[in-house]
Amino acid sequence: MQVYVPFDARQPKRRLAPVLSEEERRSFAEAMLRDVLAALDAADLEPTVLSTGSVSVDAPVETDDRELTPAVNDRLGVAAGTVAVVMADLPLLTPGAVDRLLATGGDVVLAPGLGGGTNALIARTSGFRVDYHGGSIRDHRDLAAELDLEVGVIDSYRLGIDVDEPDDLVEVLLHGVGRGRKWLVEHDVRLRTDRSGRVTIERGPVD
Amino acid sequence: MQVYVPFDARQPKRRLAPVLSEEERRSFAEAMLRDVLAALDAADLEPTVLSTGSVSVDAPVETDDRELTPAVNDRLGVAAGTVAVVMADLPLLTPGAVDRLLATGGDVVLAPGLGGGTNALIARTSGFRVDYHGGSIRDHRDLAAELDLEVGVIDSYRLGIDVDEPDDLVEVLLHGVGRGRKWLVEHDVRLRTDRSGRVTIERGPVD
Repeated sequence: MQVYVPFDARQPKRRLAPVLSEEERRSFAEAMLRDVLAALDAADLEPTVLSTGSVSVDAPVETDDRELTPAVNDRLGVAAGTVAVVMADLPLLTPGAVDRLLATGGDVVLAPGLGGGTNALIARTSGFRVDYHGGSIRDHRDLAAELDLEVGVIDSYRLGIDVDEPDDLVEVLLHGVGRGRKWLVEHDVRLRTDRSGRVTIERGPVD
Repeated sequence: MQVYVPFDARQPKRRLAPVLSEEERRSFAEAMLRDVLAALDAADLEPTVLSTGSVSVDAPVETDDRELTPAVNDRLGVAAGTVAVVMADLPLLTPGAVDRLLATGGDVVLAPGLGGGTNALIARTSGFRVDYHGGSIRDHRDLAAELDLEVGVIDSYRLGIDVDEPDDLVEVLLHGVGRGRKWLVEHDVRLRTDRSGRVTIERGPVD
């Protein structure tokens, strides 16, 4: 199975700008990428990073400076067998969640992400193509239906929580298992808990 | 097994005020409650609603006007066997997700919710007590560890997405399977999709 992990090496995680500087966003994005690669490795996969620029990781890197959708579709178009695409911003990912993804039946397997994203997918048939954008999960379901493909949807929080916005960092601090969480702790990103409502984050040394 | 679904009959879902009126919030909250009850029923459970006031549903209702934590802990204190507590604002819940929850091992089983909540739990041993507040999942894990209890954590998006804030309605529209989704559609709450970023919602008739 060919497994791709797309990575934006140019300006990753721009929506975290209220909390992290540009250099920090890049460094944190790489920490998350390494978490994803580690979970995939531990599940006996051999991921390839599909990056818009240079990135230093312990995995093969293919550079493609195009948008995500054409870059992924080119790979889907030439693949001989099953292809998986797993997003790089899933720092809650565990080998167990990857195993469940792989065990999910269907010609196409989709892992929904917060806000309508498609955080991971497996295409076990040729002909399927991606269209990554806001609300892509719906379009991916519709496209699979048009092609008369059986769709499996995995019910996973660890695959569903991608990190785009400051509030997502709460999930990393609470449920992250690797480098992403460690990075946040080392950079003084902390939980802010009130008696009611959801936990938020704040930044600064412990009082 | 005793299964409780706590419900705030007084001022449910206050944080949805930017989108829904008070009367609508109450009506939508009841629709979500019915979705949860339906999923539990279909998984062969017999839930009891633990409500702060009167509510009309097809399930036994125990009224308790105290805060959630003492109301639940009183039930945990007198229960003879296993007790489950499932939140009422989980309109993505399916019988399959409930089955997975029930199949998860541990003296205590926890389903993490967005922002540090505990959206469902099972206590298979006496002695465990809840403390619902912002960040409760962490305290529930810590308490179980203090009591030397084995903790199972279920990895589920359908259990993890509770509805508190307007953006959560996106998840209901995209992944809801019952009355909650139908309620939103009938009340002109719609997805707003841009090319990038997460889907948001808007309200009003279709152009």
